[in-house]
Order: sequence, then C-alpha cells, then structure tokens
Amino acid sequence: MPEGRRPPASPGNLAGMAAALHEARLAASLEEVPVGAVVLKDGAILARAHNETVKRCDPTAHAELLAIQGALKTLGIDRLEACSLYVTLEPCAQCAGAIVLAKVGRLVFGAYDDKAGMCGSVGDLVRHAKLNHRVEVVGGVEEEACGRLLKAFFEHRR
Amino acid sequence: MPEGRRPPASPGNLAGMAAALHEARLAASLEEVPVGAVVLKDGAILARAHNETVKRCDPTAHAELLAIQGALKTLGIDRLEACSLYVTLEPCAQCAGAIVLAKVGRLVFGAYDDKAGMCGSVGDLVRHAKLNHRVEVVGGVEEEACGRLLKAFFEHRR
Repeated sequence: MPEGRRPPASPGNLAGMAAALHEARLAASLEEVPVGAVVLKDGAILARAHNETVKRCDPTAHAELLAIQGALKTLGIDRLEACSLYVTLEPCAQCAGAIVLAKVGRLVFGAYDDKAGMCGSVGDLVRHAKLNHRVEVVGGVEEEACGRLLKAFFEHRR
Repeated sequence: MPEGRRPPASPGNLAGMAAALHEARLAASLEEVPVGAVVLKDGAILARAHNETVKRCDPTAHAELLAIQGALKTLGIDRLEACSLYVTLEPCAQCAGAIVLAKVGRLVFGAYDDKAGMCGSVGDLVRHAKLNHRVEVVGGVEEEACGRLLKAFFEHRR
C-alpha cells in the first residue's frame, strides 16, 4: 500500500474499527469470511453485523449491507447521513451502492480490496461524480489487523 | 435512446419482461416506486419481487436484490449462473453488484436509467473488466412500457 493512503488513526476511528474487528473475529469463529461492520451515530453503535454468506447460502449477505439495514431499522428512517459505517474490508460494488442508496455520511474501512473494492481500489462508487450522494471516506484504519484476519482465514481453508 | 440500443424483442424476453412488469404494476398499486423483477431458470419463474423501499423504510429494498435473494433461497445454492434476471429498470450500483456476487448468468432490463444505471448508462459493473464475473446483458426490452409506469408514478407524486 502506498504510504500516502494510510490515514491518521484518530481515537474515534480506532474505537469504531475495534467494534468492527470484533464482528469480523466472530465471523471467523463461525467459518464465515471474516468481515465485520458497525454503524455509529453520535458515538453509539446502532447496528453490528458480520458476513453471513455461508449461514444464509446467500453471496449478497455482506457485513456492510446487513449493518446498514440494521441501522435503518433501529432508527426507523430511510437515510443515514448522520451515521458512520465502519467495516474491516473495503466495500464491493453492491455494498458501495447500498451506502449511496442509504446516504451514509461517513465510511471508515480497514483493508483495501484490490480485487473488488469499489471505494478507491478497482473503482469509486461512493465518491462518484454522477451519483446523487457522496460519502466522506477514510481507508486503511487498522489495515494490518483487518487484512491479517482475512489472510489467515483463506490460508486455513486451502 | 439511440436506435442501436434497442434489442430484438424475442418471445422469451417479452414473456420474462411481462412478468416483471406485472410486479412493477403491483408496486405502483402499493405506492411503491414501480420497478419489478423476476428470476427465471429453464423458463420457470423462481422468484418474483418489486420495490419495497416504502414498506420496509429501507432504500436498499430494490426489486432485483429481493428477487435474487428469493431465487437463491428457492434453489438452495449460492450462484445463479443458469438463471436470467428480468427487471423493468436498469439496475443501480447496489443491484449490479449483487448480480455479480450471485453470478447471475443473464440480465434483461427494460428502461435505461441515465441517472443511476450501472449496466451501461452511468457505468457498467456487470461487464467490468476487473471484476470476477461478467453477465450477458440485454437492455431496452419493453422500454416504453417500463418507463411509462415510472413516469406516471413520479408525475402523480408531484
């Protein structure tokens, strides 16, 4: 990763990512791909989720989508502009699209995904000039810890 | 729409789109944005859905995502390579991403979406050179009927 991509790790970012990492570790313990996500508003966690693609036999059941849907339900509103989404892996096209639909205000992610990441790596849907919502993005928070979990999971499965 | 974008309307495409249009009309009758989707395999409908963003207070509850999840559940498998998804409106980033995740074999859509369509209009995620699945796409089937429903809905709401 180019050094310039690494953000300053603010205490708030680290606390949110710690909660997302907890979810990712829970996923690993359940034989799910270890990606975790939380949605915060005013420092309080509104929703927590981890990948459930194996349990649900549903490749769309990504942590971020489930966390967004959980936060919408908790708040009973249809936009999350005042919220921050923390996720251990850079969101894919589906989840980046869901972030735009739900108008999430801020996205903080851990590991970059050079194969499918759509928040800067392969493309950028959350800061797309032609879409009707743009997100504040911080990438690379606790990148090593987030990436190590994924690497260990896939090495173990081989 | 440029004339070259209009595909030959095969009987199969028209039948699939008729079922999707039925769902879109159902959505309109429920005060939902009139977009409908169906998933077919070997000519049989595996799942039907329409937008439920109002009912669920969830902007991610798009017809295509719900239809894909329904088809995965019906088949009990995690990929839809042998399936065709019919939807009355060009999928957005989220739904195009879900189509890639679920490895849908074929996508047939009705109206083009010049503001958010990610299957050729604003961008193309279902035939993206760097993603790990590419979809066969036919756009513009029953475009006028599909677009007319949306136009009438939004004119009525003004």
